[in-house]
Amino acid sequence: MSELTIKGENSKKASLAISKLSTVAKNELLMRAAEHLDKNIPYILEANEIDLHNARKAGIKDSLIDRLLLTEDRIQAMASGLRQIAKLRDPVGEVLHMENRPNGLKIGKKRVPIGVVGIIFESRPNVTIDAFGLCFKSGNAVLLRGGKEAIHSNLALVSIVRNALEEMELSPDIIQIVENTSRESAYEMMQLNEYLDVLIPRGGAGLIEAVVKNSTVPVIETGIGNCHIFIDANANIEMAVRIVDNAKTQRTGVCNACEKLLIHKEIAEIFLPEIHKLFISKNVEMRGDEKAKTICADIIMATEEDWHTEYLDLVIGIKIVDHLEEAIGHIQKYGTGHSEAIVTESYSNAQRFLDEVDAAAVYVNASTRFTDGEEFGFGAEIGISTQKLHARGPMGLEELTSTKYIIYGSGQIR
Amino acid sequence: MSELTIKGENSKKASLAISKLSTVAKNELLMRAAEHLDKNIPYILEANEIDLHNARKAGIKDSLIDRLLLTEDRIQAMASGLRQIAKLRDPVGEVLHMENRPNGLKIGKKRVPIGVVGIIFESRPNVTIDAFGLCFKSGNAVLLRGGKEAIHSNLALVSIVRNALEEMELSPDIIQIVENTSRESAYEMMQLNEYLDVLIPRGGAGLIEAVVKNSTVPVIETGIGNCHIFIDANANIEMAVRIVDNAKTQRTGVCNACEKLLIHKEIAEIFLPEIHKLFISKNVEMRGDEKAKTICADIIMATEEDWHTEYLDLVIGIKIVDHLEEAIGHIQKYGTGHSEAIVTESYSNAQRFLDEVDAAAVYVNASTRFTDGEEFGFGAEIGISTQKLHARGPMGLEELTSTKYIIYGSGQIR
Repeated sequence: MSELTIKGENSKKASLAISKLSTVAKNELLMRAAEHLDKNIPYILEANEIDLHNARKAGIKDSLIDRLLLTEDRIQAMASGLRQIAKLRDPVGEVLHMENRPNGLKIGKKRVPIGVVGIIFESRPNVTIDAFGLCFKSGNAVLLRGGKEAIHSNLALVSIVRNALEEMELSPDIIQIVENTSRESAYEMMQLNEYLDVLIPRGGAGLIEAVVKNSTVPVIETGIGNCHIFIDANANIEMAVRIVDNAKTQRTGVCNACEKLLIHKEIAEIFLPEIHKLFISKNVEMRGDEKAKTICADIIMATEEDWHTEYLDLVIGIKIVDHLEEAIGHIQKYGTGHSEAIVTESYSNAQRFLDEVDAAAVYVNASTRFTDGEEFGFGAEIGISTQKLHARGPMGLEELTSTKYIIYGSGQIR
Repeated sequence: MSELTIKGENSKKASLAISKLSTVAKNELLMRAAEHLDKNIPYILEANEIDLHNARKAGIKDSLIDRLLLTEDRIQAMASGLRQIAKLRDPVGEVLHMENRPNGLKIGKKRVPIGVVGIIFESRPNVTIDAFGLCFKSGNAVLLRGGKEAIHSNLALVSIVRNALEEMELSPDIIQIVENTSRESAYEMMQLNEYLDVLIPRGGAGLIEAVVKNSTVPVIETGIGNCHIFIDANANIEMAVRIVDNAKTQRTGVCNACEKLLIHKEIAEIFLPEIHKLFISKNVEMRGDEKAKTICADIIMATEEDWHTEYLDLVIGIKIVDHLEEAIGHIQKYGTGHSEAIVTESYSNAQRFLDEVDAAAVYVNASTRFTDGEEFGFGAEIGISTQKLHARGPMGLEELTSTKYIIYGSGQIR
């Protein structure tokens, strides 16, 4: 049996145990694991040092090394994340509705854990702890498979949580990490239907695409955001500048940042110079269509590829459109179904945009940056789903649960 | 471009059109399609005759021919199914909840169509119309791929619905059927991620397994039901007999029929002879473990394979267990997560069974046969999901929708 089959089976067994745990026991474990993380900072940093050393030796670029890097602060942040999760409401066991059928059957729909959650991620070791915390609180076992760059850090983090589980006489297999970080192990995990109930990829577009295309385990697709903001003809200019500025520049490397600006032709000559001035001052590179260049000549000509690209950088694509329909059509064609916004004072256009744009989150007069579990009031998130099955948008604890029907009878037959 | 790529693209386009339709327009189309079905009975029967002729020539067995067979009654039943669906509440557009965030953002979660639903099915032509009706009412385009035995019947049915769509100036591609019924076309459909939002297999265990194992399109797994009824030590004997009789014999070829009977050892000597007598009178073949044979000697010895088998026939597996834990453990090991029942007068055992058995529907003192969209009050169903993502249990119109977040702002930034 391969490592994955063995660990898959262990996860399945552990998931049965955890599904029976009380909320009190789960919260106690989360607090204890947080304590162990705090106490073991030197041990974690030592393991992380090996990963950093190997990464530097392999000539890996600085931005990746930063993702890999753990510090005392970062480890404390993971621990405090677990304490936060302990404070969140436990979704398991909630009966969403229960009704009396005419024959007297009482049929209720009850939240239950999903079972075993597989997470495939890249180089950020904090995913190990964050994902564990959310999966554990929602009653799921988690099987992690991180990138090879972070394997020593991940192993250290996982062993600390496993110790905490064992101290409380819980199955340590509630959290497991795949030690074989070869490409093959990732592909094997994508076919582990017998043991995994769901697979969530966390990382860049390449990883997500590979998982979606190759996985027969149900996948929740997360995170690619080629987000647009459409400035309608009668937008409030000051508000439009503020929202676009925030959505583009407040943080660039995130999936809910604005990547494309669509401007109604009737407002372009007033709005574009305003935002252009601001972008120049903030070193935002502008790539636009011909009409945009006619208004601000120093805008770089955009290519077809630009309209598809999630820059995750201080770059923005700019297009002047003739009307709302053209804006919606453009979003339909190039959007990734993440977050889309309109800035408008028109009631009808706001409603049409909300109705017709097909995305996880559709905004009127607000920054796309709000698509986030914390901002939506979920307390934490495991990712932002951009697919339509099971969960769409920020995924909190509730999205890590399934349901079952419970039926109270008194001898009914058909 | 292959037939599937072309039709996939057409479905995607059609799904945008249908998502904007009003409930009134959708209901009108459903009524009109029903009318067209009624008017075209001779045309449909003619097409069906070709399929029947080919099936007989190929020496296909009678039970399959019966599934293939259309009659005036069966066609009228399809039409009346569409009229029923027209009467159901349209789930699209419902805002599940909306809340004010502290920053003034109003965040609502709104039901929207999934997009394009793919259905892979076997030889029952009625699936064509039933699936169309439910997908259409919930705002989805549908791409059907039926078995080659039923292709002429399916083409006739689809062309009738397409005519009704065209009469109302709607895109006929809201319903499409794959004409290539080769094995390859099924596999190509399972990889059609670019165009299909979900794939639902409707048919036997072999089909479902093939789709689950090979599909990279998100699948909703339906229908395999190795359902158990556990007769607890202190069950009401008369009720237990009534429930087991109903669940086993009222209809045998369905996924919510009882396939296994687990009996507490303390009640076995009273209960088993009772149900044995009834089963003999109804020609139900009994296959049991040694303990069962000790009580009723003519029970056939069950093999390990029996415990895994969904008979869909007048056959039942019988096992005597020592306690509730053994019953739950057996269900965990052999169950398919469909419908599981306990007959008991013990409050604690009823609660434990409801909590610990992991299945789409868990019953106390009622027949497993109730796991059904109509019985649950959904009006109709597209299938019964036995997986944990997106939908679990009977799937009605609501389960054919996704959600999106709609956010009303007034200039908020982060």
